[in-house]
Amino acid sequence: MDELEEVQYKPIPVRTLLVEMKDLSELMIDLAYSAALFNSPELAEDVLELERKVDNLALLLKMNVMIAARDAKDAKDLLGVSLVSSAADRISDAAADIAYIVLRGIGIHPIVREVFKRVEERLGRFKVESNSILAGKKLRELRLASRIGVDVIAIRRGREWIINPKGGDEILKGDILIARGSHLGIEELGKLARGTLKELED
Amino acid sequence: MDELEEVQYKPIPVRTLLVEMKDLSELMIDLAYSAALFNSPELAEDVLELERKVDNLALLLKMNVMIAARDAKDAKDLLGVSLVSSAADRISDAAADIAYIVLRGIGIHPIVREVFKRVEERLGRFKVESNSILAGKKLRELRLASRIGVDVIAIRRGREWIINPKGGDEILKGDILIARGSHLGIEELGKLARGTLKELED
Repeated sequence: MDELEEVQYKPIPVRTLLVEMKDLSELMIDLAYSAALFNSPELAEDVLELERKVDNLALLLKMNVMIAARDAKDAKDLLGVSLVSSAADRISDAAADIAYIVLRGIGIHPIVREVFKRVEERLGRFKVESNSILAGKKLRELRLASRIGVDVIAIRRGREWIINPKGGDEILKGDILIARGSHLGIEELGKLARGTLKELED
Repeated sequence: MDELEEVQYKPIPVRTLLVEMKDLSELMIDLAYSAALFNSPELAEDVLELERKVDNLALLLKMNVMIAARDAKDAKDLLGVSLVSSAADRISDAAADIAYIVLRGIGIHPIVREVFKRVEERLGRFKVESNSILAGKKLRELRLASRIGVDVIAIRRGREWIINPKGGDEILKGDILIARGSHLGIEELGKLARGTLKELED
């Protein structure tokens, strides 16, 4: 586990921080369910890393809210923002609790598996190898949604995360793609990322 | 607010309880976001009512897990179940926190509204009036998804909730429908429920 980073105040718009916290906490729930369903330590580790990110965002948001509030009216107006941020933080903690089931070897009870299996769409997590045709392409060019029915919901690049990437975002070799889609589509994306499948049909 | 019910032990399969907790906690997040977005006290009250249901389910689950565990191995196996249940409980608490923003008149800061507005699909909550053509029909007959592009995600009937209702579930007058869909479809469902629109086109 990494050492905890020192929290440095940075002036970041509260809106930006809150959107990121909400998006991350939702992504974490999906990742945590999939980690439990597939008993995947990689997905579980991703969840814990994102939890540290959300914690950090929550602290930054608190500082920015304090500085933004000049008087009693501001303080009351910003209360809602701070409550939503703490809700997102607690959702992310709950997702981390689910991830710990996998990482602490508690074992996935058939009941847990059954509860999370009822999701129709599958989640996949793949590393883009250097011989993959995905490397160096923008999402827009790949048109994965219309071609193979998968949606890349996050790209992990080292310690950076691109959540809900846009068409203009490029895939680089070494990236970890997290994608959602049909069982078949996800399988195909895995082959494309590993470089065992070399073309995308229209 | 209702008085808290006394919790009575009932033998209910742990699987059933956990599925219900997961479904409810997910529904609550959607409802809470919509309550904040539309500043709707009705949706916020629904969230709080469901939170009490989830609390109750969590207690029932704890008791059933205790009784199911006969030895150390059972106890370890069931630990994952109990952790997932407590995660669902905390997600539901976080949703309730968001609902309180609406009910305590904290006011919906533009930033909060903006964060929750980015959801493409809308949620609607409508009471089925006695002159509505929906009353007395099964969901299967109505084919709302293919006809107007909405999906009824919950039916509230007095204090009972039907979550993710199936085709065989019937809509009764007085029911509250909670549905998700396009802006237009949701508007049409509202008119059908109020009885101002009398037919469903194919």
